Amino acid sequence: MRRVAAHVFVEDVAAPAVEVGEADFHHLSRVLRLRPGEAVSASDGAGWSRLCSWAGAPLLEPAGDAVFERRPEPEVAVGFALTKGAHPEWAVQRLTEAGVDRVVLMTTAHCVARWTPADVPRRLGRLREVARQAAMQSRRSWLPAVEGPLAFSELVGAGPAGVALAVPNGAALSLATPTVLVGPEGGWAGEELDAVRTHVALGPHVLRAETAALAAGLLLVALRAGLMGEVPAGRAGEP
Amino acid sequence: MRRVAAHVFVEDVAAPAVEVGEADFHHLSRVLRLRPGEAVSASDGAGWSRLCSWAGAPLLEPAGDAVFERRPEPEVAVGFALTKGAHPEWAVQRLTEAGVDRVVLMTTAHCVARWTPADVPRRLGRLREVARQAAMQSRRSWLPAVEGPLAFSELVGAGPAGVALAVPNGAALSLATPTVLVGPEGGWAGEELDAVRTHVALGPHVLRAETAALAAGLLLVALRAGLMGEVPAGRAGEP
Repeated sequence: MRRVAAHVFVEDVAAPAVEVGEADFHHLSRVLRLRPGEAVSASDGAGWSRLCSWAGAPLLEPAGDAVFERRPEPEVAVGFALTKGAHPEWAVQRLTEAGVDRVVLMTTAHCVARWTPADVPRRLGRLREVARQAAMQSRRSWLPAVEGPLAFSELVGAGPAGVALAVPNGAALSLATPTVLVGPEGGWAGEELDAVRTHVALGPHVLRAETAALAAGLLLVALRAGLMGEVPAGRAGEP
Repeated sequence: MRRVAAHVFVEDVAAPAVEVGEADFHHLSRVLRLRPGEAVSASDGAGWSRLCSWAGAPLLEPAGDAVFERRPEPEVAVGFALTKGAHPEWAVQRLTEAGVDRVVLMTTAHCVARWTPADVPRRLGRLREVARQAAMQSRRSWLPAVEGPLAFSELVGAGPAGVALAVPNGAALSLATPTVLVGPEGGWAGEELDAVRTHVALGPHVLRAETAALAAGLLLVALRAGLMGEVPAGRAGEP
């Protein structure tokens, strides 16, 4: 998938001719300036991909059969508190590149920003488009889910199995908790720290909220990909 | 160092009254709006720090002795190819938060952007200021070095000991190569790949150059802090 000139998401990778959407066609022809014959991979965002050939038209010429790539396990998710400005877009884009499966926006006791309910569909739609574009750039065959905003209590629910909170001086990350939640600049409230008892550190220094979210995603995915190993509990993060 | 209201770099932490520069004084009083008595840590950027108390003036009241924090070992460095726009600032800022000791800008065979020699002092000065501010936010007592731009051959020199190149499908990262170089979007040239034979992967997907630079810094620092472990050579990254 890496040597292709472009990667694009389509409705149906198994069709006799694979059709690219209008905006993507524009991007491939005008921005990337593909030339006829260049290799393009098409994916349905749910594991199926197919090698195609650029023909200068919205219909790609299939150059092979559709192949399926299993979703990596465990599912890796990062939740972060709503922030102002363009930061959610930034985080969604980078977390998608990193290979996270699920990005969840949340509201916490100390988080300042809120979305009005009427604004949610537009904002979520925008973030999903950011994720789609980042997944094209990073050649993913699975699109990440982008969800929220959920209240911390809703997200954690009754059984926070598999969930860890990022804190300074926490323990080492583990795939036993493949969902990591990153708090707002104002930090976690006491009841939040009590509700989820696994506390992990993403590094030795204080990180901005959005850098912390990306760190959580990069470290979890590196663990899952076997590029890093877990350290025994208690070895790291002792204050 | 984490519970203080602010962290600031000063010339001399051992002085009877610790003096804050004009711009930092403005930041602490007007932006962070510190109140008299709030705790501020002052550092000289070379390991010495001192807990102080805000007195509403450029002179901080020392609230303890100066303490020295050893520089963590090994020195962790990330080099990345010059990019256009604000990306170097973005990378320097985040790499400083992550805890990298040295950030090196480089030019490579396939990198598009160049700095004119006359521009170098201004641009480097700006990046060092970005690093200083990020180090204040992330409470570092050591300022990172920001260097360059160096040609790839100059940087790697005759003995590229301890240096690895980031590539797709590379091996797992190791502190045996605590300097990781990230190529431009155009990739490494063949002779560059030959000059440095340790090739490491930062994740399973294609990363933008600046995300890759940050990933290298976060992963190396997590390894050094004992938050992640190295995997045996050859286990990861097999195509």
